[in-house]
Amino acid sequence: MYVIIVYDVNVSRVNKIKSFLRKHLNWVQNSVFEGEVTKAEFERIKDGISRIIDEDEDSVIIYKFPLDFVPKREILGVEKNPIDDII
Amino acid sequence: MYVIIVYDVNVSRVNKIKSFLRKHLNWVQNSVFEGEVTKAEFERIKDGISRIIDEDEDSVIIYKFPLDFVPKREILGVEKNPIDDII
Repeated sequence: MYVIIVYDVNVSRVNKIKSFLRKHLNWVQNSVFEGEVTKAEFERIKDGISRIIDEDEDSVIIYKFPLDFVPKREILGVEKNPIDDII
Repeated sequence: MYVIIVYDVNVSRVNKIKSFLRKHLNWVQNSVFEGEVTKAEFERIKDGISRIIDEDEDSVIIYKFPLDFVPKREILGVEKNPIDDII
């Protein structure tokens, strides 16, 4: 499947979640990662996030798409991580 | 169409872009808005964002989906703005 993950976590956990997600997905913008994952990887990612975040304070949204559905996107302003590098 | 907008803008423009997007879309998390828009609204949103941001410094990603395709999502941790309120 294809996933987009956006997070809003306490500043004390930002580096931890960023370096964890970087191992599995492509960084596209501050607090946003995306990429293709298998079902097993997806479960590992969710487990890893759950272990890092404080569930009473932090928020992580995972948007899920079928593997063949890579969402269209438009960038306004700076492209922090050009699409060519990640797709 | 259905859009998800994520932004990473200089702190001096955060309030401006947030209050602009709030008029058109639903706030779902820090720096993330989403919702259904017509093609005309979509163009107005892009124009408005372009007028607010500094294109050399800020970054806004707009993910676009067909109107009947509302992406599936999972929330880990806090649901900052419950789905029931926005969909």
